[in-house]
Amino acid sequence: MFFKINRNYFIEELSKCNKIVDYKSSVPSYTAIFIEVEVDKISLVSTNTSVSIKTSTFVNKEGLEIKEVGSFLIRGKNFIEILKRMDDEIISINKVEKNIITLSGENSEFLLNVLDENDFSQITFNETGEFFEIDTAEFKKGLNQTIISVNEWNQKIVLQGLNFLTEESIFYITGTDGYRVSRKKIVLDRSVDEKLSANVPFKSVFEIIKVLNDKNKTKIMIHDSLITIISNNTIIQSTLLEGQFPDVKGVFPTDFNSTIYVENKAFFKLISRADIPSEENTSTVVNFILDGETIIIKSNIQQIASFEEEFKNFELRGLDNQNIYFNSKFILESLKSFETKVVEISFIDSKTPIMIASSEDLSLSQIILPMFSN
Amino acid sequence: MFFKINRNYFIEELSKCNKIVDYKSSVPSYTAIFIEVEVDKISLVSTNTSVSIKTSTFVNKEGLEIKEVGSFLIRGKNFIEILKRMDDEIISINKVEKNIITLSGENSEFLLNVLDENDFSQITFNETGEFFEIDTAEFKKGLNQTIISVNEWNQKIVLQGLNFLTEESIFYITGTDGYRVSRKKIVLDRSVDEKLSANVPFKSVFEIIKVLNDKNKTKIMIHDSLITIISNNTIIQSTLLEGQFPDVKGVFPTDFNSTIYVENKAFFKLISRADIPSEENTSTVVNFILDGETIIIKSNIQQIASFEEEFKNFELRGLDNQNIYFNSKFILESLKSFETKVVEISFIDSKTPIMIASSEDLSLSQIILPMFSN
Repeated sequence: MFFKINRNYFIEELSKCNKIVDYKSSVPSYTAIFIEVEVDKISLVSTNTSVSIKTSTFVNKEGLEIKEVGSFLIRGKNFIEILKRMDDEIISINKVEKNIITLSGENSEFLLNVLDENDFSQITFNETGEFFEIDTAEFKKGLNQTIISVNEWNQKIVLQGLNFLTEESIFYITGTDGYRVSRKKIVLDRSVDEKLSANVPFKSVFEIIKVLNDKNKTKIMIHDSLITIISNNTIIQSTLLEGQFPDVKGVFPTDFNSTIYVENKAFFKLISRADIPSEENTSTVVNFILDGETIIIKSNIQQIASFEEEFKNFELRGLDNQNIYFNSKFILESLKSFETKVVEISFIDSKTPIMIASSEDLSLSQIILPMFSN
Repeated sequence: MFFKINRNYFIEELSKCNKIVDYKSSVPSYTAIFIEVEVDKISLVSTNTSVSIKTSTFVNKEGLEIKEVGSFLIRGKNFIEILKRMDDEIISINKVEKNIITLSGENSEFLLNVLDENDFSQITFNETGEFFEIDTAEFKKGLNQTIISVNEWNQKIVLQGLNFLTEESIFYITGTDGYRVSRKKIVLDRSVDEKLSANVPFKSVFEIIKVLNDKNKTKIMIHDSLITIISNNTIIQSTLLEGQFPDVKGVFPTDFNSTIYVENKAFFKLISRADIPSEENTSTVVNFILDGETIIIKSNIQQIASFEEEFKNFELRGLDNQNIYFNSKFILESLKSFETKVVEISFIDSKTPIMIASSEDLSLSQIILPMFSN
């Protein structure tokens, strides 16, 4: 095995694969990057319990010259660190013995012991089949906006991740922990023939966000027990959670009694004050009182602190009387997921879920169940 | 107790005191900030095993209005966090009951439980006596450049910190772990009558670097068992290490056989490549060979990797033949301490300390003992 490649590009591709490597794992496959050099391309592969990644580069791109095919298995972290300390634009990698490679620049040479390739279980990437395509930046934004409602350790396994669903030309991403629902709606370029549904594990969602590059489009393929995400030269493949994701449409209230329009940043800061910091780092119960032209926000942590503030800087449609209790963390995370200037918070009564939305961005809705008054 | 103060300024001063608070300590005094309101000023005080800080503000500065004198004791971290979440320019703090204060802005009010003041042991700050004055930025730079040679856990207690020494109008800062010496020489505006010497603990040096603001001059006073450092409205007082600091002047070689002149960044990168990253994170033994117009750098970690590189980009004065072994970490830290473009590395032979210096900055010298060849 012998090839030459652009050093900075090689670092970038290795780093992508390295992001999902689990150095603490006792499974050898999960702790290293497998590099395969074929006649016309080089592929880097890594894997963990939920996700596998493969990134490929063809000859004559990024300085890639292949002189001899072959493969090797290496721990990514130190290998990347060594490459970073080099100065050369192009580096050569040459397998000189069964488990030894040389890494050379113009004036310097490293002799490196590599791992036993047989310790790496080969992975089949499912790259063909029906797919739909979305803008990568919008996809990543949607994942970040909905993952907030997912509890990785939920007792119901199907809720331990996000649900992806296509309905004709709409792609929904939904997360819920039973107390709140986050839903993102992305309009696709074309209608998807089949109604596709997949429950993507929490951990995989984070790996996808980390690895995907904002540029370019992303192709999504949903198979029986796998999802394949292809963006540029990178393939990410994740396992799926089994089970039927609840139909959350029924939870979305429609006829509200009161809607307040507030500046997102100001309202976020107000609720953050009510979320009194304490040693235990617990979230605070916040009492929201709408009384005519005033909103009163109250909270207290017994024996430590209490808080009260009046807020008048809002517009109101509907009833001017509400008295509701919330988990401060749920409201703060929901508000933070909106990049819009103004948000609309809609109420029915103290026992019915409230909805946070914004007419500046109709793709996102956040639903939160109130708490019992205490 | 009742006072008003500019919120952002108050956060800044509390944060200074909070930097040295040790929340894990079982000594109550070390876990909180004591705030004392007198007729004409407010003082914030915090302390830990090695260092105490006091910062004072006088009325009519920074919005300070004092309506009633008094004091309270509070955990800084959450208090600062609450203040940060407020919007007001000026805030009021009012003691309403023995252990309860209110913190108010225009529309909001917090009721906060505070700690029992009797749990805080009062500290005497020694603010008078002979002092010398230096530029704060230069002082902090000197501390950072010399602390690299100090081992906090050195068996010899006197070496567990930096030595401060005045000799007429020169102020020396020296650190050594027995294998290397870092020395900074700062020229004072005026001669100091008495020869002063103080051994400042490693931990205190870090606290001083953290707390001192680059602006302004710093006054230094050395007492029998204490050092007092005054900069602007802040006083830092540290305990001293007992014992006689070794006279390092004898270690500094003077007649060198070879001196190489290298670009600091390029030589640093070269040695960082030789410092092969490994799972164990140990420092590497680096072999430096000077042979005519070439420097050869070699290193190896058994069973893992080996490295070799030729380097020709240097100027030489003296003998063109040296073969020396080093600890990679010592060389890297020394090179990093120089902000100059070119450094000079001077050798006698493979058993005598080498010196790293730079004619662009004569205030700093780094001495490193070579290792036995293996």
